[in-house]
Amino acid sequence: MILTEGKLGIFSSKTATSLIRYCPEETACVLDSKAARTGKPLESFIGIGQGIPLVRSVKAGLAFKPTELLIGISPVGGELPQAWRKIVLQAIAAGLHVVSGLHHELNADPEFSSAARKRGVRLHDVRVPPPGIGVALDCLRKLKQRRIAIIGTDCNIGKMVTAIELDRALRHEGHDSEFVATGQTGIMIAGSGIAVDHVLSDYVNGAAELLCWQRRKREVLVIEGQGSIFHPAYSAVTVGLLHGSMPHALILQHAPARKSIRYYETYPLPPLKEVIALAEALVKPLYPAKVLAVALNTFGMSDAQAARAVQAAERQTALPACDPIRHGAKKLLDAMTPILKHRK
Amino acid sequence: MILTEGKLGIFSSKTATSLIRYCPEETACVLDSKAARTGKPLESFIGIGQGIPLVRSVKAGLAFKPTELLIGISPVGGELPQAWRKIVLQAIAAGLHVVSGLHHELNADPEFSSAARKRGVRLHDVRVPPPGIGVALDCLRKLKQRRIAIIGTDCNIGKMVTAIELDRALRHEGHDSEFVATGQTGIMIAGSGIAVDHVLSDYVNGAAELLCWQRRKREVLVIEGQGSIFHPAYSAVTVGLLHGSMPHALILQHAPARKSIRYYETYPLPPLKEVIALAEALVKPLYPAKVLAVALNTFGMSDAQAARAVQAAERQTALPACDPIRHGAKKLLDAMTPILKHRK
Repeated sequence: MILTEGKLGIFSSKTATSLIRYCPEETACVLDSKAARTGKPLESFIGIGQGIPLVRSVKAGLAFKPTELLIGISPVGGELPQAWRKIVLQAIAAGLHVVSGLHHELNADPEFSSAARKRGVRLHDVRVPPPGIGVALDCLRKLKQRRIAIIGTDCNIGKMVTAIELDRALRHEGHDSEFVATGQTGIMIAGSGIAVDHVLSDYVNGAAELLCWQRRKREVLVIEGQGSIFHPAYSAVTVGLLHGSMPHALILQHAPARKSIRYYETYPLPPLKEVIALAEALVKPLYPAKVLAVALNTFGMSDAQAARAVQAAERQTALPACDPIRHGAKKLLDAMTPILKHRK
Repeated sequence: MILTEGKLGIFSSKTATSLIRYCPEETACVLDSKAARTGKPLESFIGIGQGIPLVRSVKAGLAFKPTELLIGISPVGGELPQAWRKIVLQAIAAGLHVVSGLHHELNADPEFSSAARKRGVRLHDVRVPPPGIGVALDCLRKLKQRRIAIIGTDCNIGKMVTAIELDRALRHEGHDSEFVATGQTGIMIAGSGIAVDHVLSDYVNGAAELLCWQRRKREVLVIEGQGSIFHPAYSAVTVGLLHGSMPHALILQHAPARKSIRYYETYPLPPLKEVIALAEALVKPLYPAKVLAVALNTFGMSDAQAARAVQAAERQTALPACDPIRHGAKKLLDAMTPILKHRK
């Protein structure tokens, strides 16, 4: 049972949308009383999820035999909306385990942890980092492995989806590739990873390095990006992840409809060319990675609009562009040839 | 009593050196058995501290009536060297409070906290952040206040000293200025601040913003920098601090003798001009700050060598340069005129 209570939408419930996209068989139902009251189906809100019931209460959802309540949002600051506390407590009382990617640790919340203990259910805080994370040691440099990092013009713009789609395409082509989750939603989908925004700031680069080092036998890693390198609130996480994971190639994720930084609308997004130049300059002192492709999130556009957006991005950047959801990830895959060729 | 045990030196015991420079009257003695055994005076190791005794044991140091033991190093990773544990326990047993800027929290260490409780002394972990730190909210933009940030080509290169010297020079000229400490040593000197490398990574920008917001009535803030924007391990902290504090002007700190990133010698430092261009490009999407001056750490050079280093930096960057310790901070102060003029 995925909880989105009042927030169901492609951007407002990113975690829910991504889980529904990549784990539909594991989704029993979506709990959102506001959305359920409209009588419209799930797909009318997020474009996917056909056949998955939308319910208005924990009680109604139990009919679909869920085993866990999954908190389907990741709001600014990571706090749990007050109104949701009651729902989480109802789910615990109904015997559901709870999976959460919030900064607000459910296990550290006396009311939740006591209720869970009494009912014998687990509270899984996926954002709590594993032990052993420290400063970066520069141990990736000599690995033969190839690493691809997805960077973005903003938060919440499609970086994780692109990373997953490219990883799938790489594996489909026979590459020994792995998607590396660096945020709570990615971790829920991949089943492993580190929420790099939830480690001690001195250890962000080190956490990114550790993620890659632990997977050093993989031929290719596709690393989920976070935030943007000029984000007013999250640039620390972005840059630490980018430097710490030492990628060989970058893909720039953008949504053509996004004109300014989300929630910080005073700041217009710079032209794609400037973002690319800045990203390449930022990694240059450490390694020579280039942006090799542009991935677009064209959600909500018509096919014609999306095609025009792709053409515009290609013209602006002189790089191949596509929406991996709408057009498939083939173009992104082909763009990686220069860094993958070495093993042929 | 400042502990440097075996690490006494301008770079290896940065915390000790800075405290001795800015709080000499509060320094009873320096504890370093290795240095004390040489029979040489303190100033022969760090260039300052004339008249401050160098002792070889806690017991010997007690003769100079210290009230606190201050851990005078900040090693990579912030852990306490094993050999120092015994010394800290001896100091606690002797009734000294302990001040530490290590990641390793003394209060969270059962052996230390139990010993301190028994003896009735305080363990002050200055790196533990105050409550109330969250994501950046973009609340500085409309303040009339002027903020100057010191950035550097590397860690441990003199950024804090330059910030303190410029703040002093500003106050000497009648400006209502404050030095904003962002690391453990700065906090020990200033008596307040936040160790931005010790907050949750999602909150680095927010911690930097909070530091400035709390001081919003000050006319000028001079903000201590951390790391470098291309540091393999610490770039997350650096960039978050730089974006979160939204400075109006930048000063680039460099040490001419430094040719590569300290402890990561594979990576040569880029030319100053490239560092300046990168820093300005990185802040440009959020605010239009420029690097207005270069501060040099010429420690260990002759006056003639230092003069040549200044000339070289000025030629390379077309900016005024000086070593604020050797030459005074006048040149840096003058370089700030464009951003301070608005109140005249």
